[in-house]
Amino acid sequence: MEEREISKAVIKRLPRYYRYLGEILNNGIERISSGELSGKMQVTASQIRQDLNNFGGFGQQGYGYNVKYLYDEIGKILGVNRVHSMIIIGGGNFGHALANYDFEKNGFSTKAIFDIRPELNGTSIRGIPVMMMDELEEFVKKEDIEIAVLTLPKSKVEEVADRLVKCGIRALWNFAHLDLDVPDDVVVENVHLVDSLMQLSYRISEDNSEE
Amino acid sequence: MEEREISKAVIKRLPRYYRYLGEILNNGIERISSGELSGKMQVTASQIRQDLNNFGGFGQQGYGYNVKYLYDEIGKILGVNRVHSMIIIGGGNFGHALANYDFEKNGFSTKAIFDIRPELNGTSIRGIPVMMMDELEEFVKKEDIEIAVLTLPKSKVEEVADRLVKCGIRALWNFAHLDLDVPDDVVVENVHLVDSLMQLSYRISEDNSEE
Repeated sequence: MEEREISKAVIKRLPRYYRYLGEILNNGIERISSGELSGKMQVTASQIRQDLNNFGGFGQQGYGYNVKYLYDEIGKILGVNRVHSMIIIGGGNFGHALANYDFEKNGFSTKAIFDIRPELNGTSIRGIPVMMMDELEEFVKKEDIEIAVLTLPKSKVEEVADRLVKCGIRALWNFAHLDLDVPDDVVVENVHLVDSLMQLSYRISEDNSEE
Repeated sequence: MEEREISKAVIKRLPRYYRYLGEILNNGIERISSGELSGKMQVTASQIRQDLNNFGGFGQQGYGYNVKYLYDEIGKILGVNRVHSMIIIGGGNFGHALANYDFEKNGFSTKAIFDIRPELNGTSIRGIPVMMMDELEEFVKKEDIEIAVLTLPKSKVEEVADRLVKCGIRALWNFAHLDLDVPDDVVVENVHLVDSLMQLSYRISEDNSEE
Protein backbone atom coordinates (compact mmCIF):
# COMPACT_ATOMS: atom_id res chain seq x y z
CA MET A 1 0.00 0.00 0.00
CA GLU A 2 1.34 3.38 -0.95
CA GLU A 3 1.88 5.96 1.74
CA ARG A 4 -0.73 8.54 2.55
CA GLU A 5 -1.15 11.16 5.21
CA ILE A 6 -3.67 9.69 7.60
CA SER A 7 -4.86 11.79 10.52
CA LYS A 8 -4.17 10.67 14.07
CA ALA A 9 -7.89 10.64 14.82
CA VAL A 10 -8.47 8.06 12.09
CA ILE A 11 -5.57 5.93 13.29
CA LYS A 12 -7.04 5.99 16.78
CA ARG A 13 -10.28 4.56 15.42
CA LEU A 14 -8.64 1.82 13.37
CA PRO A 15 -8.21 -0.72 16.21
CA ARG A 16 -11.92 -0.41 16.87
CA TYR A 17 -12.76 -1.07 13.21
CA TYR A 18 -10.38 -3.99 13.30
CA ARG A 19 -12.05 -5.43 16.39
CA TYR A 20 -15.57 -5.11 14.96
CA LEU A 21 -14.59 -6.49 11.57
CA GLY A 22 -12.93 -9.44 13.30
CA GLU A 23 -16.16 -10.20 15.14
CA ILE A 24 -18.22 -9.86 11.95
CA LEU A 25 -15.80 -12.16 10.15
CA ASN A 26 -16.09 -14.72 12.96
CA ASN A 27 -19.84 -14.64 12.46
CA GLY A 28 -19.31 -15.68 8.85
CA ILE A 29 -20.46 -12.40 7.30
CA GLU A 30 -18.66 -11.65 4.02
CA ARG A 31 -20.00 -8.26 3.04
CA ILE A 32 -21.23 -5.34 5.10
CA SER A 33 -22.55 -1.87 4.29
CA SER A 34 -21.37 1.26 6.08
CA GLY A 35 -24.94 1.49 7.43
CA GLU A 36 -24.80 -1.95 9.06
CA LEU A 37 -21.31 -1.29 10.42
CA SER A 38 -22.59 2.03 11.74
CA GLY A 39 -25.38 0.28 13.68
CA LYS A 40 -22.90 -2.04 15.34
CA MET A 41 -20.21 0.53 16.07
CA GLN A 42 -22.37 3.50 17.04
CA VAL A 43 -20.47 5.68 14.61
CA THR A 44 -22.32 7.42 11.77
CA ALA A 45 -22.25 5.71 8.38
CA SER A 46 -20.80 8.86 6.83
CA GLN A 47 -17.95 8.88 9.36
CA ILE A 48 -17.23 5.26 8.51
CA ARG A 49 -17.20 5.94 4.77
CA GLN A 50 -14.98 8.95 5.29
CA ASP A 51 -12.55 7.02 7.54
CA LEU A 52 -12.29 4.03 5.25
CA ASN A 53 -11.92 6.21 2.16
CA ASN A 54 -8.55 7.20 3.59
CA PHE A 55 -7.30 3.81 2.55
CA GLY A 56 -8.97 3.93 -0.81
CA GLY A 57 -11.19 1.64 -2.77
CA PHE A 58 -12.45 -0.71 -0.10
CA GLY A 59 -16.17 -0.05 -0.52
CA GLN A 60 -18.34 -0.31 -3.58
CA GLN A 61 -21.52 1.73 -3.76
CA GLY A 62 -24.47 -0.64 -3.30
CA TYR A 63 -22.27 -3.67 -2.60
CA GLY A 64 -20.79 -2.68 0.74
CA TYR A 65 -17.40 -3.66 2.02
CA ASN A 66 -15.68 -7.00 1.63
CA VAL A 67 -15.17 -7.79 5.33
CA LYS A 68 -12.17 -10.07 4.97
CA TYR A 69 -10.35 -7.69 2.65
CA LEU A 70 -11.02 -4.68 4.86
CA TYR A 71 -9.98 -6.61 7.98
CA ASP A 72 -6.72 -7.70 6.38
CA GLU A 73 -5.90 -4.26 5.00
CA ILE A 74 -6.51 -2.55 8.34
CA GLY A 75 -4.42 -5.26 9.98
CA LYS A 76 -1.58 -4.42 7.58
CA ILE A 77 -1.89 -0.71 8.29
CA LEU A 78 -1.79 -1.38 12.02
CA GLY A 79 1.19 -3.66 11.55
CA VAL A 80 -0.55 -6.61 13.21
CA ASN A 81 -0.28 -8.82 10.15
CA ARG A 82 3.01 -10.00 11.61
CA VAL A 83 4.01 -11.04 15.12
CA HIS A 84 5.80 -8.52 17.35
CA SER A 85 8.11 -9.84 20.04
CA MET A 86 7.70 -8.28 23.44
CA ILE A 87 9.16 -8.44 26.94
CA ILE A 88 7.62 -7.27 30.22
CA ILE A 89 9.86 -5.44 32.68
CA GLY A 90 8.55 -5.88 36.20
CA GLY A 91 6.98 -9.09 37.47
CA GLY A 92 4.74 -7.42 40.05
CA ASN A 93 0.96 -7.57 40.03
CA PHE A 94 0.64 -5.55 36.92
CA GLY A 95 3.36 -7.31 34.96
CA HIS A 96 1.85 -10.60 36.08
CA ALA A 97 -1.60 -9.57 34.89
CA LEU A 98 -0.23 -8.48 31.52
CA ALA A 99 1.74 -11.72 31.14
CA ASN A 100 -1.52 -13.59 31.64
CA TYR A 101 -3.25 -11.53 28.99
CA ASP A 102 -3.58 -13.30 25.66
CA PHE A 103 -2.02 -10.65 23.41
CA GLU A 104 -0.68 -13.37 21.09
CA LYS A 105 -3.96 -13.60 19.22
CA ASN A 106 -3.53 -9.91 18.33
CA GLY A 107 0.02 -10.38 17.07
CA PHE A 108 2.05 -9.63 20.20
CA SER A 109 4.13 -12.44 21.64
CA THR A 110 5.60 -12.06 25.12
CA LYS A 111 9.01 -13.76 25.24
CA ALA A 112 10.13 -13.08 28.82
CA ILE A 113 9.41 -11.16 32.02
CA PHE A 114 12.30 -9.37 33.72
CA ASP A 115 12.54 -8.69 37.43
CA ILE A 116 15.20 -8.04 40.05
CA ARG A 117 13.93 -10.42 42.76
CA PRO A 118 16.19 -13.49 42.83
CA GLU A 119 13.35 -15.66 44.16
CA LEU A 120 11.52 -15.21 40.84
CA ASN A 121 14.52 -16.38 38.80
CA GLY A 122 13.64 -19.54 36.87
CA THR A 123 9.91 -19.30 37.53
CA SER A 124 7.41 -18.74 34.74
CA ILE A 125 3.98 -17.21 34.13
CA ARG A 126 1.81 -18.95 31.54
CA GLY A 127 4.94 -20.61 30.24
CA ILE A 128 6.78 -17.29 29.87
CA PRO A 129 10.12 -17.38 31.72
CA VAL A 130 10.97 -14.83 34.41
CA MET A 131 14.56 -13.65 33.94
CA MET A 132 16.88 -11.37 35.89
CA MET A 133 17.65 -7.80 34.87
CA ASP A 134 21.34 -8.54 34.24
CA GLU A 135 20.28 -10.76 31.34
CA LEU A 136 18.27 -7.96 29.70
CA GLU A 137 20.62 -6.60 27.05
CA GLU A 138 21.74 -9.97 25.77
CA PHE A 139 18.17 -11.26 25.54
CA VAL A 140 16.83 -8.19 23.71
CA LYS A 141 19.58 -8.42 21.10
CA LYS A 142 19.55 -12.19 20.70
CA GLU A 143 15.78 -12.49 20.47
CA ASP A 144 15.35 -9.31 18.43
CA ILE A 145 12.78 -7.91 20.86
CA GLU A 146 10.81 -4.97 19.48
CA ILE A 147 8.60 -3.90 22.37
CA ALA A 148 9.29 -3.55 26.11
CA VAL A 149 6.36 -3.22 28.49
CA LEU A 150 7.32 -1.07 31.47
CA THR A 151 5.47 -1.99 34.65
CA LEU A 152 8.12 -1.11 37.18
CA PRO A 153 8.23 1.55 39.89
CA LYS A 154 8.37 5.15 38.69
CA SER A 155 11.79 5.69 40.29
CA LYS A 156 13.41 2.96 38.19
CA VAL A 157 11.71 3.50 34.85
CA GLU A 158 14.05 6.07 33.35
CA GLU A 159 17.18 4.06 34.03
CA VAL A 160 15.64 0.93 32.52
CA ALA A 161 14.29 2.85 29.51
CA ASP A 162 17.83 4.13 28.85
CA ARG A 163 19.22 0.60 28.94
CA LEU A 164 16.53 -0.60 26.55
CA VAL A 165 17.11 2.25 24.12
CA LYS A 166 20.86 1.53 24.15
CA CYS A 167 20.32 -2.10 23.20
CA GLY A 168 18.05 -1.21 20.31
CA ILE A 169 14.46 -1.54 21.52
CA ARG A 170 12.00 -0.01 19.06
CA ALA A 171 9.04 0.71 21.31
CA LEU A 172 8.15 1.19 24.96
CA TRP A 173 4.67 0.48 26.25
CA ASN A 174 4.80 2.51 29.41
CA PHE A 175 2.51 1.88 32.40
CA ALA A 176 4.56 4.01 34.82
CA HIS A 177 2.99 7.32 35.66
CA LEU A 178 5.60 9.55 34.09
CA ASP A 179 6.55 10.75 30.63
CA LEU A 180 9.68 9.26 29.13
CA ASP A 181 12.34 11.20 27.31
CA VAL A 182 13.71 8.96 24.54
CA PRO A 183 15.20 9.47 21.08
CA ASP A 184 12.74 10.24 18.28
CA ASP A 185 13.11 6.85 16.64
CA VAL A 186 11.85 5.04 19.75
CA VAL A 187 8.08 4.86 19.98
CA VAL A 188 6.48 5.43 23.39
CA GLU A 189 2.86 4.56 23.99
CA ASN A 190 1.67 5.47 27.48
CA VAL A 191 -1.08 3.83 29.48
CA HIS A 192 -1.43 6.34 32.30
CA LEU A 193 -4.16 4.80 34.44
CA VAL A 194 -4.43 7.74 36.82
CA ASP A 195 -4.90 10.12 33.89
CA SER A 196 -7.68 7.91 32.60
CA LEU A 197 -9.37 7.91 36.03
CA MET A 198 -9.10 11.70 36.12
CA GLN A 199 -10.79 11.99 32.74
CA LEU A 200 -13.55 9.87 34.20
CA SER A 201 -13.86 11.97 37.34
CA TYR A 202 -13.92 15.14 35.24
CA ARG A 203 -16.87 13.74 33.34
CA ILE A 204 -18.81 12.74 36.44
CA SER A 205 -18.11 15.93 38.36
CA GLU A 206 -21.40 17.72 38.75
CA ASP A 207 -20.38 20.91 37.02
CA ASN A 208 -19.89 18.99 33.81
CA SER A 209 -22.72 16.49 33.93
CA GLU A 210 -25.08 18.65 31.87
CA GLU A 211 -22.74 18.78 28.90
CA MET B 1 -15.80 28.32 38.85
CA GLU B 2 -18.27 29.31 36.18
CA GLU B 3 -18.87 27.00 33.28
CA ARG B 4 -16.97 27.38 30.07
CA GLU B 5 -16.65 25.35 26.93
CA ILE B 6 -13.34 23.59 27.23
CA SER B 7 -12.15 21.44 24.36
CA LYS B 8 -11.62 17.72 24.84
CA ALA B 9 -7.98 18.08 23.83
CA VAL B 10 -7.35 20.48 26.71
CA ILE B 11 -9.16 18.22 29.17
CA LYS B 12 -6.97 15.33 28.03
CA ARG B 13 -3.89 17.36 28.90
CA LEU B 14 -5.10 18.45 32.34
CA PRO B 15 -4.12 15.30 34.25
CA ARG B 16 -0.63 15.79 32.93
CA TYR B 17 -0.50 19.41 34.12
CA TYR B 18 -1.88 18.24 37.44
CA ARG B 19 0.83 15.59 37.76
CA TYR B 20 3.68 17.99 36.93
CA LEU B 21 2.35 20.74 39.18
CA GLY B 22 2.04 18.22 42.03
CA GLU B 23 5.70 17.29 41.58
CA ILE B 24 6.77 20.94 41.45
CA LEU B 25 4.74 21.64 44.59
CA ASN B 26 6.41 18.70 46.33
CA ASN B 27 9.74 20.26 45.49
CA GLY B 28 8.69 23.40 47.37
CA ILE B 29 8.44 25.64 44.31
CA GLU B 30 5.79 28.35 44.71
CA ARG B 31 5.82 30.13 41.38
CA ILE B 32 6.64 28.91 37.89
CA SER B 33 6.67 30.54 34.46
CA SER B 34 5.12 28.96 31.40
CA GLY B 35 8.68 28.74 30.05
CA GLU B 36 9.92 26.66 32.99
CA LEU B 37 6.83 24.47 32.92
CA SER B 38 7.38 24.06 29.18
CA GLY B 39 10.92 22.76 29.76
CA LYS B 40 9.69 20.15 32.21
CA MET B 41 6.64 19.05 30.26
CA GLN B 42 8.03 19.15 26.73
CA VAL B 43 5.06 21.22 25.60
CA THR B 44 5.61 24.67 24.11
CA ALA B 45 5.20 27.63 26.46
CA SER B 46 2.60 29.12 24.15
CA GLN B 47 0.56 25.90 24.26
CA ILE B 48 0.72 26.01 28.06
CA ARG B 49 -0.40 29.64 28.20
CA GLN B 50 -3.19 28.90 25.77
CA ASP B 51 -4.36 25.82 27.70
CA LEU B 52 -4.30 27.52 31.07
CA ASN B 53 -6.01 30.63 29.73
CA ASN B 54 -9.06 28.43 29.31
CA PHE B 55 -9.51 28.60 33.05
CA GLY B 56 -8.81 32.29 33.23
CA GLY B 57 -6.56 34.46 35.31
CA PHE B 58 -4.08 31.94 36.67
CA GLY B 59 -0.94 33.52 35.27
CA GLN B 60 0.44 37.00 35.63
CA GLN B 61 2.77 38.37 33.01
CA GLY B 62 6.28 38.45 34.44
CA TYR B 63 5.30 36.75 37.68
CA GLY B 64 4.43 33.31 36.39
CA TYR B 65 1.88 30.98 37.86
CA ASN B 66 1.12 30.39 41.50
CA VAL B 67 1.78 26.65 41.59
CA LYS B 68 -0.47 25.79 44.55
CA TYR B 69 -3.39 27.82 43.21
CA LEU B 70 -3.09 26.34 39.73
CA TYR B 71 -2.75 22.81 41.15
CA ASP B 72 -5.86 23.23 43.30
CA GLU B 73 -7.92 24.78 40.51
CA ILE B 74 -7.04 22.03 38.04
CA GLY B 75 -7.84 19.50 40.78
CA LYS B 76 -11.30 21.06 41.15
CA ILE B 77 -11.88 21.02 37.41
CA LEU B 78 -10.88 17.35 37.27
CA GLY B 79 -13.12 16.61 40.24
CA VAL B 80 -10.26 15.13 42.26
CA ASN B 81 -10.62 17.65 45.09
CA ARG B 82 -12.98 15.15 46.68
CA VAL B 83 -12.77 11.38 47.16
CA HIS B 84 -14.60 9.11 44.74
CA SER B 85 -15.73 5.71 45.95
CA MET B 86 -14.99 2.83 43.67
CA ILE B 87 -15.46 -0.93 43.42
CA ILE B 88 -13.59 -3.42 41.27
CA ILE B 89 -15.59 -6.14 39.55
CA GLY B 90 -13.42 -9.19 38.92
CA GLY B 91 -10.75 -10.38 41.31
CA GLY B 92 -8.53 -11.94 38.64
CA ASN B 93 -4.98 -10.85 37.90
CA PHE B 94 -6.00 -7.52 36.58
CA GLY B 95 -8.49 -6.69 39.30
CA HIS B 96 -5.88 -7.79 41.80
CA ALA B 97 -3.25 -5.51 40.27
CA LEU B 98 -5.64 -2.56 40.29
CA ALA B 99 -6.63 -3.23 43.92
CA ASN B 100 -2.95 -3.04 44.80
CA TYR B 101 -2.56 0.27 42.99
CA ASP B 102 -2.56 3.27 45.29
CA PHE B 103 -5.30 5.33 43.63
CA GLU B 104 -6.32 6.77 47.01
CA LYS B 105 -3.66 9.45 46.83
CA ASN B 106 -5.31 10.68 43.63
CA GLY B 107 -8.77 10.78 45.17
CA PHE B 108 -10.13 7.34 44.29
CA SER B 109 -10.92 5.00 47.14
CA THR B 110 -11.57 1.32 46.41
CA LYS B 111 -14.21 -0.02 48.80
CA ALA B 112 -14.58 -3.63 47.67
CA ILE B 113 -13.71 -6.19 45.02
CA PHE B 114 -16.49 -8.38 43.64
CA ASP B 115 -16.03 -11.88 42.28
CA ILE B 116 -18.05 -15.04 41.75
CA ARG B 117 -15.55 -17.56 43.13
CA PRO B 118 -16.75 -18.71 46.56
CA GLU B 119 -13.17 -19.45 47.66
CA LEU B 120 -12.41 -15.71 47.50
CA ASN B 121 -15.33 -14.80 49.77
CA GLY B 122 -14.09 -13.16 52.96
CA THR B 123 -10.52 -12.69 51.68
CA SER B 124 -9.03 -9.25 51.15
CA ILE B 125 -6.43 -7.46 49.01
CA ARG B 126 -4.52 -4.63 50.69
CA GLY B 127 -7.28 -4.53 53.29
CA ILE B 128 -10.02 -4.24 50.65
CA PRO B 129 -12.65 -6.97 51.13
CA VAL B 130 -13.53 -9.41 48.35
CA MET B 131 -17.31 -9.84 48.20
CA MET B 132 -19.66 -12.03 46.19
CA MET B 133 -21.64 -10.79 43.20
CA ASP B 134 -24.99 -11.36 44.90
CA GLU B 135 -24.09 -8.62 47.36
CA LEU B 136 -23.40 -6.10 44.58
CA GLU B 137 -26.61 -4.07 44.40
CA GLU B 138 -27.00 -3.65 48.12
CA PHE B 139 -23.36 -2.58 48.54
CA VAL B 140 -23.42 -0.04 45.70
CA LYS B 141 -26.54 1.61 47.13
CA LYS B 142 -25.54 1.49 50.79
CA GLU B 143 -22.00 2.75 50.22
CA ASP B 144 -23.01 5.25 47.53
CA ILE B 145 -20.43 3.88 45.08
CA GLU B 146 -19.77 6.14 42.11
CA ILE B 147 -17.33 4.20 39.96
CA ALA B 148 -17.18 0.51 39.01
CA VAL B 149 -14.00 -0.87 37.48
CA LEU B 150 -14.79 -3.67 35.05
CA THR B 151 -12.04 -6.28 34.80
CA LEU B 152 -14.17 -9.30 34.07
CA PRO B 153 -14.38 -11.54 31.00
CA LYS B 154 -15.83 -9.94 27.88
CA SER B 155 -18.76 -12.38 27.85
CA LYS B 156 -19.99 -11.23 31.27
CA VAL B 157 -19.36 -7.49 31.07
CA GLU B 158 -22.62 -6.39 29.49
CA GLU B 159 -24.78 -8.22 32.01
CA VAL B 160 -22.83 -6.77 34.94
CA ALA B 161 -22.85 -3.27 33.42
CA ASP B 162 -26.65 -3.48 33.18
CA ARG B 163 -26.91 -4.45 36.84
CA LEU B 164 -24.64 -1.57 37.85
CA VAL B 165 -26.59 0.95 35.80
CA LYS B 166 -29.85 -0.25 37.37
CA CYS B 167 -28.54 0.29 40.88
CA GLY B 168 -27.38 3.82 40.09
CA ILE B 169 -23.66 3.64 39.30
CA ARG B 170 -22.39 6.89 37.78
CA ALA B 171 -19.32 5.71 35.92
CA LEU B 172 -17.75 2.58 34.47
CA TRP B 173 -14.01 2.25 34.04
CA ASN B 174 -13.96 -0.49 31.47
CA PHE B 175 -10.95 -2.76 30.89
CA ALA B 176 -12.88 -5.34 28.87
CA HIS B 177 -12.17 -5.23 25.17
CA LEU B 178 -15.64 -4.18 24.00
CA ASP B 179 -17.67 -1.00 23.83
CA LEU B 180 -20.50 -0.71 26.33
CA ASP B 181 -23.95 0.54 25.49
CA VAL B 182 -25.23 2.44 28.54
CA PRO B 183 -27.61 5.38 29.16
CA ASP B 184 -26.22 8.85 28.43
CA ASP B 185 -25.96 9.82 32.08
CA VAL B 186 -23.53 6.99 32.83
CA VAL B 187 -19.92 7.83 32.04
CA VAL B 188 -17.79 5.15 30.39
CA GLU B 189 -14.04 5.49 30.22
CA ASN B 190 -12.36 2.66 28.33
CA VAL B 191 -8.86 1.31 28.82
CA HIS B 192 -8.59 -0.90 25.76
CA LEU B 193 -5.11 -2.35 26.10
CA VAL B 194 -5.13 -4.13 22.76
CA ASP B 195 -6.08 -0.88 21.00
CA SER B 196 -3.17 0.82 22.71
CA LEU B 197 -0.78 -1.93 21.58
CA MET B 198 -2.10 -1.59 18.03
CA GLN B 199 -1.42 2.16 18.07
CA LEU B 200 2.08 1.27 19.11
CA SER B 201 2.53 -1.33 16.38
CA TYR B 202 1.17 1.12 13.82
CA ARG B 203 3.85 3.56 14.84
CA ILE B 204 6.68 1.05 14.64
CA SER B 205 5.56 -0.55 11.41
CA GLU B 206 8.20 0.24 8.84
CA ASP B 207 5.94 2.02 6.39
CA ASN B 208 5.30 4.70 9.00
CA SER B 209 8.67 5.01 10.64
CA GLU B 210 9.81 7.90 8.50
CA GLU B 211 6.94 10.11 9.59
